[in-house]
Amino acid sequence: MTPKRISIIGVGLLGGSIGLAAKARLTGCKITGYGHRRSTLDAALNMGALDEAYDTLSAAVADADLIILCTPVGLFRSLLSELAPLVSRTALITDVGSTKRSIVAAADELLSSPEQFVASHPMAGSEKRGVQYSRADLYDGALCILTPASRTSSLALKAVEDFWKLLGMQTCRVSPEAHDRLLADVSHLPHALAAALVSMQDPSAFPLAGKGFHDMTRIAGGDGGLWGDILLDNRDNVRQSIVHLKERLDHLLSLLQDEQADALRNWLDAVAEKRQGMLDARGKSDCQ
Amino acid sequence: MTPKRISIIGVGLLGGSIGLAAKARLTGCKITGYGHRRSTLDAALNMGALDEAYDTLSAAVADADLIILCTPVGLFRSLLSELAPLVSRTALITDVGSTKRSIVAAADELLSSPEQFVASHPMAGSEKRGVQYSRADLYDGALCILTPASRTSSLALKAVEDFWKLLGMQTCRVSPEAHDRLLADVSHLPHALAAALVSMQDPSAFPLAGKGFHDMTRIAGGDGGLWGDILLDNRDNVRQSIVHLKERLDHLLSLLQDEQADALRNWLDAVAEKRQGMLDARGKSDCQ
Repeated sequence: MTPKRISIIGVGLLGGSIGLAAKARLTGCKITGYGHRRSTLDAALNMGALDEAYDTLSAAVADADLIILCTPVGLFRSLLSELAPLVSRTALITDVGSTKRSIVAAADELLSSPEQFVASHPMAGSEKRGVQYSRADLYDGALCILTPASRTSSLALKAVEDFWKLLGMQTCRVSPEAHDRLLADVSHLPHALAAALVSMQDPSAFPLAGKGFHDMTRIAGGDGGLWGDILLDNRDNVRQSIVHLKERLDHLLSLLQDEQADALRNWLDAVAEKRQGMLDARGKSDCQ
Repeated sequence: MTPKRISIIGVGLLGGSIGLAAKARLTGCKITGYGHRRSTLDAALNMGALDEAYDTLSAAVADADLIILCTPVGLFRSLLSELAPLVSRTALITDVGSTKRSIVAAADELLSSPEQFVASHPMAGSEKRGVQYSRADLYDGALCILTPASRTSSLALKAVEDFWKLLGMQTCRVSPEAHDRLLADVSHLPHALAAALVSMQDPSAFPLAGKGFHDMTRIAGGDGGLWGDILLDNRDNVRQSIVHLKERLDHLLSLLQDEQADALRNWLDAVAEKRQGMLDARGKSDCQ
């Protein structure tokens, strides 16, 4: 199935880029957008990311065969409850959220046909925020993690998977629980860590920070509201990741002594090798 | 003063790139190299990074007016003691090490004319290692931190500063003590942190790591021996930086609860703003 009418709920960087990519890659598909701010909707229309824009949810999702939630994670629950009475029984619903357990649970609870809902996490983005940064190639070549629940229809799952592939993405399936655990380690903790690293810097060190520092803390430039929502929504896993990292730092402290010099060098070499393994694993997910 | 004969002690990425940059930017300057491995010296000669290569220190530094120590930090002390009887009283000596207290103390103790020694930390490099990655523009536009000691001659300091400027660098002066404290926070801790972050990852998370993760851990791909030396040499400061970071992580843990949601978002926004301040401070050092 190729969608004929896509409804994008929340038109920022991610939603706008879906619009641009769908316009570029899907023929005969109408893109509708929903948002509160008229200026944002107008910008999206002017960029060609949307064909139609509405400030009421019912108008935006009428006749939609694919509804994509692109707001911050913290708004998903109230959106789903507003959407529930509005969506047709044939429409698919997906999202672009960075956490998956909560939205899967909310869909299960609030939608009358939760089998229509397929949770997605397209791993693309930027520390920049706003529809003006949208790009038709934002998703190209990146990984989209789908986290089906037990009630998700396999037809719906396949259709949403095909949609992300049409936008140029690779796809992969894991459970919502595994997603949130693994993403805490590879995404949410790194974000928190970049923020902690910036927060501890003394102004006198600012001019001495080099490319390594700036690369490492780039993700700390993201929006606080958006990332606060993600960290809070996945707090149990993020807490566990922070505790694990602190254990590694304690190990490192124990290696910072003369008689541990060889152990320290070997540990650093093993880490460099592991990092290479992670680079090699890019795009080689054994998921579908 | 423009040097007429530069002797590069240790011809890897940093030493080779000094050779290439000096050949490109200084006229009538002969570049001599010293190293243990014939294959490395031959590669440097073939690339045009050196004019002459020697495997004895005395031959490599004979007639040199500028001697640059480019070996790993851990070898500096023994090198200085070997160099002491070989250098003429008019030659300048500098280095490219990432820590500064230990080499300044060693020069003071071991050289008969410690006023000839000017400690430098050109902040350029790569996670790649080896003369084959040398580039004539490696230092271009980057910052070189000079850490003069009380006995450093101001003429020598000015001459070494001018040399780095000839290679395209900005320069800046701080004390060896301030250097090691500040660099622990903006360079050595980030390196240790990137390593700790990689080390804690579960293989099942490898394919899910995105661009943010790989940017953040790029510096963990560096050589273990080299970085082990740096972390050990600056261990008191690195320990302190790790302790400070752990305090920030504990603060973050305290913010990961519903009633702290606004405080968490505000903290993340303040960090994003601070990071922008750090980016704006690049190249705006108030040092000379």
